[in-house]
Amino acid sequence: MTSATDRATAELMDSIAFDAQGLVPAVAQQHDTGEVLMLAWMSREAVAETLATGRVCYWSRSRGRLWRKGETSGQVQRLVELLVDCDGDTLLLRVDQSGVACHTGRRSCFFRAVRGGRLETVAEPLVPPGQLYGA
Amino acid sequence: MTSATDRATAELMDSIAFDAQGLVPAVAQQHDTGEVLMLAWMSREAVAETLATGRVCYWSRSRGRLWRKGETSGQVQRLVELLVDCDGDTLLLRVDQSGVACHTGRRSCFFRAVRGGRLETVAEPLVPPGQLYGA
Repeated sequence: MTSATDRATAELMDSIAFDAQGLVPAVAQQHDTGEVLMLAWMSREAVAETLATGRVCYWSRSRGRLWRKGETSGQVQRLVELLVDCDGDTLLLRVDQSGVACHTGRRSCFFRAVRGGRLETVAEPLVPPGQLYGA
Repeated sequence: MTSATDRATAELMDSIAFDAQGLVPAVAQQHDTGEVLMLAWMSREAVAETLATGRVCYWSRSRGRLWRKGETSGQVQRLVELLVDCDGDTLLLRVDQSGVACHTGRRSCFFRAVRGGRLETVAEPLVPPGQLYGA
């Protein structure tokens, strides 16, 4: 027997346009400051787990498996709100990021900006990467 | 003979990891409010044109051609800053959006949020879509 919750989840999944690989890009934004932290990809299972647990879970394309953000580094993302765009092919995750989002130890993965036609580093690590990954 | 500008552009392009289709996802964020407006895709040519003109140009996957944001609707995006993420496979465009970003007449394309397991519309159009597209 299908519960109302199951039906709601099925309807929600139907409104998301997963690509040919079964993935959808998800932009993570710190909910209170508005800072864009990163972009990663989610599968249906990752979306369902994230909504069920309130802790953000992506699909790692490089590892080919679910990636519970912070599982190694401890830098988890708590979901505040999940939004879907007009075409259903991008998600926006408003999150509360513990510590830093980037594997380089920076708050955001977007730490290089074009200045005078060249890429310049515009943010420094807040945490040594070795400390994040127990090196 | 290659100018310094051409070399800088070539170096910048080399630091962007375009996918197998020659595209990279680009998140557009209103530079002063932090609002995430939309996600679209850029080709090398779109990145080069955007940097050269200061007006955001995407690659339309549905139309298979360059898409100068606002060319039909008048709702252009002026580039304030272009950032590249740690892996080089996502761009963040800090922009100044004229009017609305979404073809539905809403400021942002992310106007549907999950509430109680269902998608709810959380922002209304600021402009009638017919007015944007001359209907």
